[in-house]
Amino acid sequence: MNSGVRFRPVGVVSSRFREPSDLPPPAFAPPRFFERSTGEIEVFSGYAAGLDGLEGFSHIIVLFHFHRAGESKLKVVPPGELKPRGVFATRSPHRPNPLGLSVLRLLGRKGRILRVSGLDLIDGTPVLDIKPYTVRDRKSHIRTGWLQRGRGSR
Amino acid sequence: MNSGVRFRPVGVVSSRFREPSDLPPPAFAPPRFFERSTGEIEVFSGYAAGLDGLEGFSHIIVLFHFHRAGESKLKVVPPGELKPRGVFATRSPHRPNPLGLSVLRLLGRKGRILRVSGLDLIDGTPVLDIKPYTVRDRKSHIRTGWLQRGRGSR
Repeated sequence: MNSGVRFRPVGVVSSRFREPSDLPPPAFAPPRFFERSTGEIEVFSGYAAGLDGLEGFSHIIVLFHFHRAGESKLKVVPPGELKPRGVFATRSPHRPNPLGLSVLRLLGRKGRILRVSGLDLIDGTPVLDIKPYTVRDRKSHIRTGWLQRGRGSR
Repeated sequence: MNSGVRFRPVGVVSSRFREPSDLPPPAFAPPRFFERSTGEIEVFSGYAAGLDGLEGFSHIIVLFHFHRAGESKLKVVPPGELKPRGVFATRSPHRPNPLGLSVLRLLGRKGRILRVSGLDLIDGTPVLDIKPYTVRDRKSHIRTGWLQRGRGSR
């Protein structure tokens, strides 16, 4: 069978959030909390050439390692919810593969440093990949299941 | 230093595209080509419980291993372009970490089989994670850099 694939960090996050507990769950954050949250992504020097042209994009997709996730679970109870949900129906860090994804606004690039907003990651998060956000990632009419009910809809 | 993290497939793609060469580059595909492209994701039985609640979402984010990518590059020449771009400013499979991301429409779920459209993956692609697509992934005003010029803007 497939023994999997090993990924190595290509960069690291600088954030004012030091611990997972410093991050409010999105559904409980004040309005525009994350839009106002800024920080940096440092891409390691061996990968800097891969950033050329990224500065033309307003948003980037950052794939990262949930390095502080701990235990993996198949069912999780999202913050503020009572009912357990399948982990693939949530954005919980406790995933079979602790892979995270955030869409961030790219405020600017200085060499191999990306300044971003929308940051919902803790300091030291290992970045595995960066991709430009394109029109194919933007879906206009969406249904968001259990998130649509109650608090989660924000 | 960080020796990285190993991820193991939680599922596999069933697609009518057998080879990377069967897939047209998005910029060259006929209009609505990918919207009409359907297929399935089989989640392995050990992870099936993680899918509960996913059926309420119209779109899912699939993170996968570009298992046929071959060589990694820092600069790539996108299809139809003349100028090399940094790989992080493209969606090329030839990435330092061959991690791919597709936003797919979830047509339905039967147990651990997800029926999807928007499929731009080849048969046998190892799936590493599945996430619900939420309002935070949808950005209304975007700039898409070099993609905005010429063919790439479609």
